[in-house]
Amino acid sequence: MSMTKNSVNRAILPEPTIRRLPWYLSYVRMLDKLHVDYVSSTQISKELNVQSSQIAKDLSFLNVKGKTRIGYEVKSLVAELEDSLGFSRHHDAVVIGTGSLGTALMQDHGLEHYGLNIVAGFDVRPEVIGQKLGGLPVYDINDLPGWQQEHHVSIAILTVPVDHAQATADRAIASGMTAIWNFTPYRIKAPQDVVIANTSIYAHLAIIYNRMQQTFIDTE
Amino acid sequence: MSMTKNSVNRAILPEPTIRRLPWYLSYVRMLDKLHVDYVSSTQISKELNVQSSQIAKDLSFLNVKGKTRIGYEVKSLVAELEDSLGFSRHHDAVVIGTGSLGTALMQDHGLEHYGLNIVAGFDVRPEVIGQKLGGLPVYDINDLPGWQQEHHVSIAILTVPVDHAQATADRAIASGMTAIWNFTPYRIKAPQDVVIANTSIYAHLAIIYNRMQQTFIDTE
Repeated sequence: MSMTKNSVNRAILPEPTIRRLPWYLSYVRMLDKLHVDYVSSTQISKELNVQSSQIAKDLSFLNVKGKTRIGYEVKSLVAELEDSLGFSRHHDAVVIGTGSLGTALMQDHGLEHYGLNIVAGFDVRPEVIGQKLGGLPVYDINDLPGWQQEHHVSIAILTVPVDHAQATADRAIASGMTAIWNFTPYRIKAPQDVVIANTSIYAHLAIIYNRMQQTFIDTE
Repeated sequence: MSMTKNSVNRAILPEPTIRRLPWYLSYVRMLDKLHVDYVSSTQISKELNVQSSQIAKDLSFLNVKGKTRIGYEVKSLVAELEDSLGFSRHHDAVVIGTGSLGTALMQDHGLEHYGLNIVAGFDVRPEVIGQKLGGLPVYDINDLPGWQQEHHVSIAILTVPVDHAQATADRAIASGMTAIWNFTPYRIKAPQDVVIANTSIYAHLAIIYNRMQQTFIDTE
């Protein structure tokens, strides 16, 4: 595997910055649609409630330079944000566990705009194996190692029932996958060189419930 | 509105604690299924890679007491975690934007196990308005204020296209909803007494891409 020019130039970004960049991207994409040519960090700050010094710092990781009094060129900022976030390149992925969430992800062509190219699903249920979901094939999870030897996909999207989370992640990793996007509420253990991203929608629900109660108490 | 005994006893939890509690819950639910009676924080620590002092601290917010050398009773811990996280009570919600993700959430009965009771969907597209998704009705977004006067639902799940995120959130809030579960990559502005929870799946994707590159560089 050789390093491309792109990967040499691209910076390793701090996680809080990565979390904010998609907010900026959504906003400047909208400006671009509205044919706005330039945007200042002050403007972004007002719109998104992020301090403009923070925005300037976050954007300093990118290959963009703002002009005094004019700000950033919107089109370059969109392109540079997409590039830095990895959204402008294709990343192949498989969905493991084609229940309702897994199926939704396979059918959601919106993810392609964020560089995610789902190529197949895997499951244990005979009634879905061999079927197509969102135009993509669903295979037997037992066939993953052999399939992977041919396809070399890096990202496994984990949408299995929680009590199969660790075992399934282990199988994906043993097959050579190097990133697990974990949608289960289980905290997966993995070797250090495997990337794990947890999208814990249930934790977010708990935060909503708890904060609603807080608001309720505050306003009593 | 009167405060129930439950809401008096329940603590306002720090957000990092709320993020960890679902991990503990998944694990002790599994132990319960396997008919294990007691679990120590050391055991949870080993399984989930969280320091046992942290676990003890997190669990101190709950109405459970561990016994020396025996640990926590699994069944009580499951019940108390579910209660603290709000998963054992019903919270009504609507899905606004019945695209692939919105539809998946309406069809995912798994959310009920986490206290979320989706009762309807709202959309702007004539072809889905009046239809049923996952057995639930889809209404015209224009009918939201009138519908809400009758149903008093607190939680809006926002799965609209990103450029409609703020305007749609504004409408939900104007209709009297007090919590927005935001699945769009847009950073929504709302009055202080409205709870906003952002589930930024695209930010997580960017983190995966960035970390994969880091691993790649590390291993070169």
